[in-house]
Amino acid sequence: MEQETRLSTEPTTPEAAPATPGTVRPGGRTAKVRAAVLEATQDALVEQGFHALNMDRVAAAAGVGKTTVYRRWGSPIGLITDLLHDMAEQSLPAADTGDLEGDLRANALLVLKTLTDPRMGPVFQAVIASAACDEECATALNGFYTTRLREWAPAVARSVARGEIPAGTDATEVLRAVSAPLYYRFAVSREPLAPADAERAVAVALAGARAGAFR
Amino acid sequence: MEQETRLSTEPTTPEAAPATPGTVRPGGRTAKVRAAVLEATQDALVEQGFHALNMDRVAAAAGVGKTTVYRRWGSPIGLITDLLHDMAEQSLPAADTGDLEGDLRANALLVLKTLTDPRMGPVFQAVIASAACDEECATALNGFYTTRLREWAPAVARSVARGEIPAGTDATEVLRAVSAPLYYRFAVSREPLAPADAERAVAVALAGARAGAFR
Repeated sequence: MEQETRLSTEPTTPEAAPATPGTVRPGGRTAKVRAAVLEATQDALVEQGFHALNMDRVAAAAGVGKTTVYRRWGSPIGLITDLLHDMAEQSLPAADTGDLEGDLRANALLVLKTLTDPRMGPVFQAVIASAACDEECATALNGFYTTRLREWAPAVARSVARGEIPAGTDATEVLRAVSAPLYYRFAVSREPLAPADAERAVAVALAGARAGAFR
Repeated sequence: MEQETRLSTEPTTPEAAPATPGTVRPGGRTAKVRAAVLEATQDALVEQGFHALNMDRVAAAAGVGKTTVYRRWGSPIGLITDLLHDMAEQSLPAADTGDLEGDLRANALLVLKTLTDPRMGPVFQAVIASAACDEECATALNGFYTTRLREWAPAVARSVARGEIPAGTDATEVLRAVSAPLYYRFAVSREPLAPADAERAVAVALAGARAGAFR
């Protein structure tokens, strides 16, 4: 199942291979401890939300000593911040379908799938709430989206090169315009998300791009 | 200073008068207690965020007995939920500038002003985070935006009637498209917000509306 991100503990298939050099994990004990603790953190966020995140329970669920968890992550916010770093590192490669509409649709459907996923939906709900309460966490969340934008920006650049949309179009703004209506319903106005919302986000971003609204 | 919402404790000027009948408060003791408690809640959210919201401190700051605050609001989440109800009740009338671009710009600038306001910015950050942690709070936040959409939808309907955009355009989706990129930066990707972001949101929503992307 393709999602906006995957956990480092999931099996690595060719489709889900890290997009860029440097994202391959060292397989040593430190990496294994981190993977176990971050998976337990994610489990806890799915089950109870970030306000109930508890270091002792995460340590127990991960099978890792409490001292290690406290020394390395410090606090529940430290766990969430590191989870965000991990999510950014494990980010999936962007689509290349041959035209902008196809690429933006692939992006919108990936966001939709992630936010409506029974596991990743609550995780994103939790990291967004954590970022509202803590600046370090907010910086990590910002870093996650910066990584995503960097990976998908070439789709817009290719479209400019093909002459589909005006020169000078800001690639990251086009991509933000695709994500924004989906995240708005998910995290702000708290409305249900359906495939029609993804299609509309693509159609509006595309109309804006063609009209030069992102220059 | 015009904002997306105002506190019921602020002086009522003709410009800020309630938009619809039924929003005028009874001036009795119960209403005064509620106004004082909700203002103290807002102060606390601005100063410390929602995770540090404390019923005893709110009661003390409002000059209201603890028993009253516990009996009437029950929990910090109860305070935030009632604050959201109050914000929805105190919602300001929508603009009517004579064309869709002007009305959408007025809407975008109102959202921008609210989210970048030193007082209302932290309050919105806090209510969005609270909604991520509590379903009752999420329902109240959804209700706030539903009220806003209902007030601004006529701007889009007038534009359809003037023949500026296609018949069958979904008014609330046009308005969500204006708000979404601003809230996305504010609450999700945690990026700075500037007037250019409001202008871009208007230009993109307008291009989408003209292209029929909201039908």
